[in-house]
Amino acid sequence: MTQISQAQARTIIDTAFAKGDALGLKPLSVVVLDAGGHVLAFSRADGAAPGRFAIAHGKAYGAVMLGMAGTAQMKRAEDQAYFMAAVNGVFGGQVVPVPGGVLARHDGAVVGAVGVTGDTSDNDAICAVAGLEAAGLSAEI
Amino acid sequence: MTQISQAQARTIIDTAFAKGDALGLKPLSVVVLDAGGHVLAFSRADGAAPGRFAIAHGKAYGAVMLGMAGTAQMKRAEDQAYFMAAVNGVFGGQVVPVPGGVLARHDGAVVGAVGVTGDTSDNDAICAVAGLEAAGLSAEI
Amino acid sequence: MTQISQAQARTIIDTAFAKGDALGLKPLSVVVLDAGGHVLAFSRADGAAPGRFAIAHGKAYGAVMLGMAGTAQMKRAEDQAYFMAAVNGVFGGQVVPVPGGVLARHDGAVVGAVGVTGDTSDNDAICAVAGLEAAGLSAEI
Amino acid sequence: MTQISQAQARTIIDTAFAKGDALGLKPLSVVVLDAGGHVLAFSRADGAAPGRFAIAHGKAYGAVMLGMAGTAQMKRAEDQAYFMAAVNGVFGGQVVPVPGGVLARHDGAVVGAVGVTGDTSDNDAICAVAGLEAAGLSAEI
Repeated sequence: MTQISQAQARTIIDTAFAKGDALGLKPLSVVVLDAGGHVLAFSRADGAAPGRFAIAHGKAYGAVMLGMAGTAQMKRAEDQAYFMAAVNGVFGGQVVPVPGGVLARHDGAVVGAVGVTGDTSDNDAICAVAGLEAAGLSAEI
Repeated sequence: MTQISQAQARTIIDTAFAKGDALGLKPLSVVVLDAGGHVLAFSRADGAAPGRFAIAHGKAYGAVMLGMAGTAQMKRAEDQAYFMAAVNGVFGGQVVPVPGGVLARHDGAVVGAVGVTGDTSDNDAICAVAGLEAAGLSAEI
Repeated sequence: MTQISQAQARTIIDTAFAKGDALGLKPLSVVVLDAGGHVLAFSRADGAAPGRFAIAHGKAYGAVMLGMAGTAQMKRAEDQAYFMAAVNGVFGGQVVPVPGGVLARHDGAVVGAVGVTGDTSDNDAICAVAGLEAAGLSAEI
Repeated sequence: MTQISQAQARTIIDTAFAKGDALGLKPLSVVVLDAGGHVLAFSRADGAAPGRFAIAHGKAYGAVMLGMAGTAQMKRAEDQAYFMAAVNGVFGGQVVPVPGGVLARHDGAVVGAVGVTGDTSDNDAICAVAGLEAAGLSAEI
């Protein structure tokens, strides 16, 4: 399985930040996780709130651990709230089931995930996708 | 009390996997717990997401600890969400109250539980039942 | 990076059990983790104590997360006990730093780990190595 | 109070990595925390073990929260192990009291901390200092 390199992780973060600037979004925070849900890289833009690492991480972590991107997680949470609450319990409360948690795929396999937070969930996801595509990876929002 | 043997646990897992293949389901993960809720055996099929152990475990653990299979737990969660949330609190957030958590009975007594995850909850339960029956145990979904 | 397949995980477990039988060891429990520290497969032999999953897991989990096999972890714990205690803290108390946590390598890269518990730590490690070699992987004890 | 900017955080990480390369060290992981102990930036070099975020974070987190760099924490742990263990308890086990956790000061005030892990603790600290100095901050090891 392909692994996301540190160079790719930097490209993802820098491109997501640039996309946010281009769209005039609020300061973003971006995390890149590997295929096991472990942190490869993170950056929090100047002016972002101190707790943004945990939120970015929670969006990406749930995506990797469940193999389900943020949009699908949000739908499940809306359809069956107690199920996603329970799933969160077994993952130590580390899952934030909203857009902005974007799966990274290569040749179809999940190789990690990106979590973006700071603006609306939909805008966060747009920036994550821009980052992944710049790094040559497929994005599933 | 009869205990589920390691040989039976393997039969349960292998049969559940075979049932999933026969039905064309997504890659499954299957856990077998003993009468104390402790892990006897687990297998995660190739291609399943990394977090599947925790979900399979949560389905089976709740079944054993409450003496209540996944279908009954789901009904309770839908009827009285705060109660199941509170129950989950006292069990450290380790309970996933949906089908696919199937009680194993022998001569009427609970001897353990099987947790299956990967496809829809109902399909997960079908595979758990197939596994338990192949091992000579009664299944309560 | 190569991933350990479910077929390899079964080979590891079955071979470790067979090695334990051949050596006349106590009932073993064997877990196989992937490169992210997530459970691929586990089996607990008949007669093993109920808490053996947690111990097997802790041996293998620390090995993967630290990139350091059980023997090296034990040396560090003996040389600088407060450091390994602190490391354990950041991993939620999930690290058991003794032999029997064996790194699985392929072409030099860590692709997972095996945790064996039940007999002496050294005998546990011997069985883990037998399992990994039967699966075509290099073992670092 | 001066805050570490994202540009400075990048300088710290890139310089620490370059120092590690120049010294021929193992792959490093570097975290930069703000004055509240919250993550500003992190990078894990290719080939580093998956659990390195937690260790880097633990080194830097303890430094900020206690206002005491890694070397002083290690001395305290060696002199009075139960005290540092108790301190760790009140911080949720998130403190790793060894060199490589380096305080960042500006005009005497603590403005954050850097945590480096991957090689020996002393080498880790050397790389953290190089990073902080390149970013125009004072380092207390």
